[in-house]
Amino acid sequence: MKLQETSKRKSQTSEPLKGDATKAAILDAALEVAEVSGLQGITIGVLAEKTSMSKSGVFAHFRAREDLLVEVVREYHRRFEQIVFEPALELAKGLPRLKKMIATWLEITSAAESTGSVFITGPIEFDDQPGVIRDALVQSVEIWRQALLRSINESIQLGHLKDTADPDVILFQIYSYVLGVHHDVRFLHVEKSLATAKRLIEEMFSQHLNNQ
Amino acid sequence: MKLQETSKRKSQTSEPLKGDATKAAILDAALEVAEVSGLQGITIGVLAEKTSMSKSGVFAHFRAREDLLVEVVREYHRRFEQIVFEPALELAKGLPRLKKMIATWLEITSAAESTGSVFITGPIEFDDQPGVIRDALVQSVEIWRQALLRSINESIQLGHLKDTADPDVILFQIYSYVLGVHHDVRFLHVEKSLATAKRLIEEMFSQHLNNQ
Repeated sequence: MKLQETSKRKSQTSEPLKGDATKAAILDAALEVAEVSGLQGITIGVLAEKTSMSKSGVFAHFRAREDLLVEVVREYHRRFEQIVFEPALELAKGLPRLKKMIATWLEITSAAESTGSVFITGPIEFDDQPGVIRDALVQSVEIWRQALLRSINESIQLGHLKDTADPDVILFQIYSYVLGVHHDVRFLHVEKSLATAKRLIEEMFSQHLNNQ
Repeated sequence: MKLQETSKRKSQTSEPLKGDATKAAILDAALEVAEVSGLQGITIGVLAEKTSMSKSGVFAHFRAREDLLVEVVREYHRRFEQIVFEPALELAKGLPRLKKMIATWLEITSAAESTGSVFITGPIEFDDQPGVIRDALVQSVEIWRQALLRSINESIQLGHLKDTADPDVILFQIYSYVLGVHHDVRFLHVEKSLATAKRLIEEMFSQHLNNQ
């Protein structure tokens, strides 16, 4: 599942203004660069080359590289929501929805040909670099964490999970296992960690299941 | 605990050749840069400025930036072993040694003013960039993982943990929780995740404790 495909599909079915289409093409190219070289790898020069535009043409759409990177984070966020969050809304609140969110997230995180990880690589790139890009990343990651937390809380309120379960601890476990899968599969090519993570998350939920 | 301090202490107590001392100073500076901007942030220009040397002076010690980065990974590995691995060897084989390795690793990972994380940030920076730097990182990370795995296996062989425990799964859990702490403490400043990780690792060991 490639996050880039989303906007391509969109631009085939709607008719955006020419300026918007160009901007979307630049953002598409930027997300492709981020896939290989991280946000840090995105430069006006690289984007000009990828989109066959002049540097000043790229500049015309973004006042500065920093603005461009903030927009890349926001665009990534939009696509992440479309792919990971929105399909889960079709499932019942509580554990079914939560499990769907985690399953899709693990899928895009472990897919070799997917960006799937600006929310994972971005924080590492900018953890010690204060500024608008770091702020945009923190904001996006926090929105995603709040969505997960809300769903964990709903699982408890609806009685799917015992009320002794600690939502923050469950969030930490889920997040850590996804980071572990990203590390093992994408860096070490230890593919079996995806199955290990799925099993551990199932076991963690079993521990807290309400069997009344 | 700053990984940079190690070589400074060393250079005060021994008398290295002048060339070696200069090279060590360059590597020290490079590790300081990596702390803030990652391995990608290390350039000959930045190092020349930090060490008050000319660019050609820095170049004289490393044939190319790539060689320099490989040496930075190796130097980081040496310091990591000194700080995280070697002190654990003073404890009894099995669970005491394993727990000491994990405790020190968590400590340097969550310390704000520590590099502590080239083994975490490096893999993210180079996960999709084949080459000698990625190879050096994979090699270092694999050596560390094998040390953890050996200690997990010894814990089982010595009867500290049940023989139903799966060493690969335990390694994945430990590694994921450390990545989770790095993410939460350094990026989101959610400091309590360190205590959460410690508790989860204790609970995980409790599950597998041999109470015969």
